[in-house]
Amino acid sequence: MPRSQFQHGGDIRRLAARAGVSQDELLDFSANINPLGLPVGFRSLIRRRLNEILHYPDPRAAGVIAAVSRRYGIPPEEIIVGNGSTEILYALPRALSRGRAVIPVPSYADYAVASALAGMEVVKVALSEHRGFILEMDELEDHLQGDEIVFIGRPNNPTGLSCAAVAIRAAARRHPDTVFVIDEAFADFVPAMDRLLVRRPPNVIVLCSLTKFHAIPGLRLGFAAGAAAVMEKIGGFILPWTVNALAQAAGETVLDDDDYRRRTLALIEKERRFLSEGLRDRFAFHVYPGEANFLLARIDGRKMDAPGLAAKLLKKGIAIRRCDNFTGLDRRFFRVAVRKRPENEALLAALQDIWTALD
Amino acid sequence: MPRSQFQHGGDIRRLAARAGVSQDELLDFSANINPLGLPVGFRSLIRRRLNEILHYPDPRAAGVIAAVSRRYGIPPEEIIVGNGSTEILYALPRALSRGRAVIPVPSYADYAVASALAGMEVVKVALSEHRGFILEMDELEDHLQGDEIVFIGRPNNPTGLSCAAVAIRAAARRHPDTVFVIDEAFADFVPAMDRLLVRRPPNVIVLCSLTKFHAIPGLRLGFAAGAAAVMEKIGGFILPWTVNALAQAAGETVLDDDDYRRRTLALIEKERRFLSEGLRDRFAFHVYPGEANFLLARIDGRKMDAPGLAAKLLKKGIAIRRCDNFTGLDRRFFRVAVRKRPENEALLAALQDIWTALD
Repeated sequence: MPRSQFQHGGDIRRLAARAGVSQDELLDFSANINPLGLPVGFRSLIRRRLNEILHYPDPRAAGVIAAVSRRYGIPPEEIIVGNGSTEILYALPRALSRGRAVIPVPSYADYAVASALAGMEVVKVALSEHRGFILEMDELEDHLQGDEIVFIGRPNNPTGLSCAAVAIRAAARRHPDTVFVIDEAFADFVPAMDRLLVRRPPNVIVLCSLTKFHAIPGLRLGFAAGAAAVMEKIGGFILPWTVNALAQAAGETVLDDDDYRRRTLALIEKERRFLSEGLRDRFAFHVYPGEANFLLARIDGRKMDAPGLAAKLLKKGIAIRRCDNFTGLDRRFFRVAVRKRPENEALLAALQDIWTALD
Repeated sequence: MPRSQFQHGGDIRRLAARAGVSQDELLDFSANINPLGLPVGFRSLIRRRLNEILHYPDPRAAGVIAAVSRRYGIPPEEIIVGNGSTEILYALPRALSRGRAVIPVPSYADYAVASALAGMEVVKVALSEHRGFILEMDELEDHLQGDEIVFIGRPNNPTGLSCAAVAIRAAARRHPDTVFVIDEAFADFVPAMDRLLVRRPPNVIVLCSLTKFHAIPGLRLGFAAGAAAVMEKIGGFILPWTVNALAQAAGETVLDDDDYRRRTLALIEKERRFLSEGLRDRFAFHVYPGEANFLLARIDGRKMDAPGLAAKLLKKGIAIRRCDNFTGLDRRFFRVAVRKRPENEALLAALQDIWTALD
């Protein structure tokens, strides 16, 4: 599959070029990155450890593994680190040699891409728009035969909704031969979440990202936790020296920053409500009750569709994520990141301009 | 294959721990990195562009492609960029779907690992020690059937020897259905080399590294050049956002540093001669006439073998690369990087201590 077929938010170079603004001027609501920006002390960390790039990075990323182990109380042998959780997601289907991937949709497109690339049959299970894209575990279980990998985002991208941990644990018990891959890439943004990462049945693998919550997507860092033997297998498909030295330096440090964590959660909670209410009350968009640092919205009525809206916003230097290339969504849907108040206000004001001009 | 089976030099954490010294104290001759260290201005470049890690890296690494294109006069569509040339090396056999890999040995172990991981039959063609591990093209061609990928290091690791470009071009013409992968990861260290990268037959793919010559192995950056359609195919197996933002910033800059290039070539040429003569004249090691920034040496006689020597040197805080895990070599062989004069002298002095104590 040519790389150009990967479709994601956050390609700010292309978006900025199309908007005719510089990358710094573009207001990017298309990628879901912590709006607080780099953690405090991060610049001095990089300065201090820059000389480490003179050496090959630790192929095991042992320092990051130790930090994850310490933070979550997971034995080191149950953790692997990758060049973003993306690398682990793509290694996983190749390593596990299962016949089928069962994927509730809409969800992150790369679950299906990674599975197909590994030669698996991909079974997409449609989440019902009528029921608000809530995952019904018994409907999912109808598709399980014991030879598959199930991919579940938690919270799910782009809906922001989470299936209850107890439901997943129960399903995992009922289907001991099925591998459940739970993508908790955005779980750090959800306060007091019952993490599968921490209480994890043996046939569950949890994917985590350190780049979204800690605002370092350009540095690339993710990890996964699962049974030691399975992690060993997947590790065989993670390339040598794949995690660069500065990402490792970051990973060894950021997890301990509890202040950044608290400030992020407070900001996201407040701003998600502000943005959600603004989108609903001022434009009558249907806004899904997502729990993460982004919101899925649906435009009802025939005034304008989401691609049209995205194009008009881009002309004003604002990028949002149109969602018509998510299986199960269409041109009515768009996704926006939750950012700081002035930025969220700028988005709502730009929307107002566009919306008013249509009347 | 578990990651622990990858066997390379430069794992300084493990080596330093075994030596009982800190990583900074370890004198590392096991990895072949430019001893000049970070290019001038590199720290300020990273400081200036650090904010770019707040965004996803450019999935196409267009800036790096443009820099490579400019430097070598290669059309952009014939270039792909990876998380080290390693990522491209591992993507290549998967993308090309050939039945067999034909690999002259001794050579870089990952040619075979990457091919086997993609399900290919691996045919190793032994380079004759008797003839100094010189690649004889006609012997290699005896193994070609038209369904294979041939991997040739140029200069070859660990011998440092290069097959003539004209011989490879002629072989590529005679075998138009064979794909020749020429690994020029260390070619920058060879003055006035006739690069396949620049004059490249259509069935030749050239792998290049930017991390060895520019001393940024911890940052991860490599590229490949080949026919546009083939690069497109391989690009489909390069993961999204795989090249981090700081590696891209480096790649956009370092190729233009001609002064660094000149100083490196002058240093390496002088020090390679110094080290080569020292190893030969003072210890009667057989030193192969390598052209790169490393030397392969053979210990004749029964005084001590290379693993024994490596262990004794490590106790003195010096790491060399024992070569008995290269197919075609044995416990007589070791490889050392060419470093600056005081470091090379320290290596020779430590060797002298060990050697004298054995008398």
